[in-house]
Amino acid sequence: MLESKRVRELLGVDRAIIQAPMAGGITTPDLVAEVSAAGGLGMIAGGSLAPDDLRSLIRETRGRTGRNFGVNLFIPRNFEVTDSDIENAFRLLRPAYDAFGLEQGPVTPAAPGDVREKFDRQLDVVVEEGVPVVSFIFGIPDADQLSRLKSYGIVTLATATTAAEAADIAAAGLDAVILQGAEAGGHRGAHPGTTEDSLTGLMPLISESVKRMDIPVIAAGGIMTGRGIVSAGILGSEGVQMGTAFLAALESGAHPLHKRILTESADIPAVLTKLFTGRQARAVKNRFISEFGMFEDEMTAYPVQRSLTQPFQDASKNAGSPDYAMLLAGQGKQHARHMPAAELIEVLSLEVGELGYDI
Amino acid sequence: MLESKRVRELLGVDRAIIQAPMAGGITTPDLVAEVSAAGGLGMIAGGSLAPDDLRSLIRETRGRTGRNFGVNLFIPRNFEVTDSDIENAFRLLRPAYDAFGLEQGPVTPAAPGDVREKFDRQLDVVVEEGVPVVSFIFGIPDADQLSRLKSYGIVTLATATTAAEAADIAAAGLDAVILQGAEAGGHRGAHPGTTEDSLTGLMPLISESVKRMDIPVIAAGGIMTGRGIVSAGILGSEGVQMGTAFLAALESGAHPLHKRILTESADIPAVLTKLFTGRQARAVKNRFISEFGMFEDEMTAYPVQRSLTQPFQDASKNAGSPDYAMLLAGQGKQHARHMPAAELIEVLSLEVGELGYDI
Repeated sequence: MLESKRVRELLGVDRAIIQAPMAGGITTPDLVAEVSAAGGLGMIAGGSLAPDDLRSLIRETRGRTGRNFGVNLFIPRNFEVTDSDIENAFRLLRPAYDAFGLEQGPVTPAAPGDVREKFDRQLDVVVEEGVPVVSFIFGIPDADQLSRLKSYGIVTLATATTAAEAADIAAAGLDAVILQGAEAGGHRGAHPGTTEDSLTGLMPLISESVKRMDIPVIAAGGIMTGRGIVSAGILGSEGVQMGTAFLAALESGAHPLHKRILTESADIPAVLTKLFTGRQARAVKNRFISEFGMFEDEMTAYPVQRSLTQPFQDASKNAGSPDYAMLLAGQGKQHARHMPAAELIEVLSLEVGELGYDI
Repeated sequence: MLESKRVRELLGVDRAIIQAPMAGGITTPDLVAEVSAAGGLGMIAGGSLAPDDLRSLIRETRGRTGRNFGVNLFIPRNFEVTDSDIENAFRLLRPAYDAFGLEQGPVTPAAPGDVREKFDRQLDVVVEEGVPVVSFIFGIPDADQLSRLKSYGIVTLATATTAAEAADIAAAGLDAVILQGAEAGGHRGAHPGTTEDSLTGLMPLISESVKRMDIPVIAAGGIMTGRGIVSAGILGSEGVQMGTAFLAALESGAHPLHKRILTESADIPAVLTKLFTGRQARAVKNRFISEFGMFEDEMTAYPVQRSLTQPFQDASKNAGSPDYAMLLAGQGKQHARHMPAAELIEVLSLEVGELGYDI
């Protein structure tokens, strides 16, 4: 119970606390390096990055810390988006563009083949750069990819949203499973074939998963405090991954509006929506989600949808308005603490220690 | 942390373990009495019962135990169901009737006024019968109802699904809040005005609620084991309410098929649906939910919908088929233990004790 030794040894860190990879410039090299320097595991959000940009971020991060850090990648998935799909989505999204006087520029959708190619190049980069830990979301790498990573001694993790997905990850031979409870902010990491009604809370997800595997499980979703870490540990998790908590950190690249709204939205829920990216993600409910929710099924697939909504997302934040911004957050957002990442890790460790445990 | 004394004293019990009220004959007098005799708090599911039937159940339960037990009631809500709504729902439900060769009998919908009248009579019964604890779901009793109960020394609890609802319950002057995480089986207890996208996991629900109130909170949703009890306690809950765990108990009136499926449906999720009763409830996904899900918004309101689906629910269970049965269950269903209720309470207490805590 709250035995974090296996995870600390596996990841080569002092604290079994992983800073969740958060795209869109949130997990800056500064944040990642600070987390790792403080004894946790910083993670670069590599999924949406061009291979060269990923390489630069890895090098920049390495320039700031000699400690282990990791990279997260997205398992590619087939999708189909036609020009007429884009046209239709643009038509429905028109009022959001109009709200900021924006033009709807041409969007050239990446093809599924391009996405797979990009993933292969991203894998090349993590191998070439000798990144010690790589985590995956949206599925499991194939056997060849996995054995290549293992041959270089790279530690592999993958996200599961159900106990069945967790069992699949263990069976595939990865080193540990990140269990993402329904409470988590950002993208749901569901694997292909998992239906969206399988939204499982973190508590039953941990309890059921640990019955089905021997590799360590790492808990994610709504964990913001030492009590949250211990609570998950009691159920069998051997470490935690925290996103929203680090989003609020000083070094995070999240927009100040985004950081502020975490603690200033007490009675506004963080809800699941596909509107922003084409994939289910939990974000603070706002005008865009409320007013465009009815069009959710008429939007395009990931990653195309992201390009279609980025212009007004950015404009909204720059105008200081939450109305059309993608304000990803987990259900524990009210507990966010605006402090340096290293201090957060220190505070969490102390809180866990006060309860008689160790992380 | 895991301080259960306030709840034990409030409820007049030895163990801060409440057996959740479960309608449809699950919480038999035998189950309720056994739970109370074993030191927990048994609860009669009174919400859908005619006042005279409620009175009989209370007396029967009292005949079996001298210990405290409670009654749960449904806060009435306005609804509108026309004859043509029923006709439309019947038309869509036709294949489910046909599957068992059933006729669609005439349904006379209860009017909202009838439902309020029934609730008032139910309150009379609990007062007249001197029931020591009454819990409410779907909202908060009004000030007059509440002060009447208090004047008789009746302890009052109400269910919250968000921290805002919990704060409302505390502000209204009830004695404790039952926090129902999104993981919970059976009806979601959301108050009027709470939107369905506010589905909050138990962990963040506890953490956020305890910051906002001084009365004790009791955790519900996916708790099946001593570890679950302690995990919730670490976050600040001072007791637990467990449904699915007691549904599996020997004395529960749940159909054997229902009890069995809890542990025999490893990779089948328990999902939210309004199809069975007109209100969101979590049940094991089956053929009916999958095939009729698309008609959810065309179904009638609670309690009318219940009458429309009851015939094939019963027929399905009697035919030994889960396909059209309402198999309510929480997300912790895999941990169900088929044992006498008193033994379950004993085992849970031991498990909590082994972790160094007390419940």
